[in-house]
Amino acid sequence: MSEELVKALNDSTKQVNDLLYELLPERYPKDLYKASRHLIDAGGKRVRPFLVLTCCELVGGNPLKAIPLAAAIELIHNFTLVHDDIMDQDRLRRGVPTVHVLYGVPLGINAGDMLFAKAYEAALRAQRNVKPGRLFKALDVITEATITVCEGQALDMAFEGKMKVTEREYMDMVAKKTAALLVASACVGAIAGGGKSYEVARLGRAVRASGLAFQMVDDILGLTADEKVLGKPVGSDIREGKRTLIVIHGLNHAKKLQSETILRALGNRNASLEEITKAVNTLKSLGSIDYVAAKAEAFNQRAKSELRIFPSSNACERLLTLFDYIVERKY
Amino acid sequence: MSEELVKALNDSTKQVNDLLYELLPERYPKDLYKASRHLIDAGGKRVRPFLVLTCCELVGGNPLKAIPLAAAIELIHNFTLVHDDIMDQDRLRRGVPTVHVLYGVPLGINAGDMLFAKAYEAALRAQRNVKPGRLFKALDVITEATITVCEGQALDMAFEGKMKVTEREYMDMVAKKTAALLVASACVGAIAGGGKSYEVARLGRAVRASGLAFQMVDDILGLTADEKVLGKPVGSDIREGKRTLIVIHGLNHAKKLQSETILRALGNRNASLEEITKAVNTLKSLGSIDYVAAKAEAFNQRAKSELRIFPSSNACERLLTLFDYIVERKY
Repeated sequence: MSEELVKALNDSTKQVNDLLYELLPERYPKDLYKASRHLIDAGGKRVRPFLVLTCCELVGGNPLKAIPLAAAIELIHNFTLVHDDIMDQDRLRRGVPTVHVLYGVPLGINAGDMLFAKAYEAALRAQRNVKPGRLFKALDVITEATITVCEGQALDMAFEGKMKVTEREYMDMVAKKTAALLVASACVGAIAGGGKSYEVARLGRAVRASGLAFQMVDDILGLTADEKVLGKPVGSDIREGKRTLIVIHGLNHAKKLQSETILRALGNRNASLEEITKAVNTLKSLGSIDYVAAKAEAFNQRAKSELRIFPSSNACERLLTLFDYIVERKY
Repeated sequence: MSEELVKALNDSTKQVNDLLYELLPERYPKDLYKASRHLIDAGGKRVRPFLVLTCCELVGGNPLKAIPLAAAIELIHNFTLVHDDIMDQDRLRRGVPTVHVLYGVPLGINAGDMLFAKAYEAALRAQRNVKPGRLFKALDVITEATITVCEGQALDMAFEGKMKVTEREYMDMVAKKTAALLVASACVGAIAGGGKSYEVARLGRAVRASGLAFQMVDDILGLTADEKVLGKPVGSDIREGKRTLIVIHGLNHAKKLQSETILRALGNRNASLEEITKAVNTLKSLGSIDYVAAKAEAFNQRAKSELRIFPSSNACERLLTLFDYIVERKY
């Protein structure tokens, strides 16, 4: 990540972090609050708060006013991670053990619920700064996005047991599970900043395209990056049987033997490292990784072109830098 | 339950039910929406919606305007049930298998999250009928109550592994896990109905006392009612090691042998029916059940006396009837 972008992310989200910790104090019952803070502590890039604040500024608003909404969306994001890790039985996230691994499944569910409720506590603090009509609109957007994320998670799980998933089904699932909350971040920021409807819509479309690219790159990194930079074991996606676009493309273009190599590892929790490596190499030789990389870049171009209506500004530049970073990141 | 009260509950909550089904249509992904509707379908007394609508009317408001808020609180309640059943590994609820038993733990978590998000969708529909300031206040109350319920569930789980729980700790846990959302129902109804601060506070205090009585009676029924009317296996609370007030009183007053009889069954998932029965009989002979019944009645009197400031009205009468029903119900 460019130093510049790191600085922009950190600067803009410092106050969001402060609010997150204010909302999750070291309070009784201690284990619940500790479990709730665990993933927040572990880091994360705070891309969603960055989007909220940047889009607020981009339409001419004061980003400080959107801090509670930025914290709200980050809390929603973290709640979905805590619960998804239980559903998917993932043991590592952001390089540390997942919440349920440390605290058990019951407290993990409980902590996710707490983060969810805290998201609305955060959002409702915007009453001080954001006009009622705009705040209700922002709450509508956050709520609808969360419903959509739940649908996306259900689809993602259903795909794991499904032999044949089409590219179209995949795109729909990613739009729901990953892109929806990113889109909501942009829209909520623009709404809070006093943006006009067409500006909100345009930013939403830009971030939707970038969000789809984001997931595609994530899928690639899941196969090619190493565990240290990834924060979770290499090949997790293959072991869990995730129907990523790479796998869908691969299975659609594989000959019989190639299919067998992929399917031997796919969804097989006991697959050996060798079987995983063979499956990944087969996907590479089928051009599936290149295909998805090219598609991610095309979505990035689309995302950037959506921003053309906005006059050049510092905020707009930062957003374009984020879009490029999303497809260029190597970890 | 008196026929009159049944009719009052049904009449007042019919439109709430309609809204619940409108919010949870038979939509893609089908399993997720089916799992989310499961407990709503299974019934439940809709005590919380009744409280919202009745308290709205009691302070002079039009209860129809509070329907979205009543639906919201019922959805919050159902989300907590779905997740609690997973955390507590309960297999029966309202006489039917719990959500995770039918759909698996991952979809159970997912469905609970969906119900949670849908609660805010429901509440935000009140934008049409409730003034912004009052609706924000109602959202604050719902959100704080949900946070409190999460804390209560964490305490309840922590108690299961704890040897010594005091009566004070028990009351605090029940105030959080059970009473908080009932109190929120009353307050939200009164807020939406245009109630004055002291009216909202008074109704909150009344329902808090009644809510504590409610849980005590529930604890008694958990030991004395049979499976058919209870909707879950007799002795579940003992098997799960729940520190109910009955158990706390019993252990505080038991001699060595009596303690052993209780502890042999308490928290022992493999306890035989005979061991359960012996534990229950020991608690009876120690006067623990009578003690809790008397305490529940005292809380009921307190609840009713809180209502004295309100002039007699149909709504007030219905609320008093509900309070009495809560301590008199035999199932």
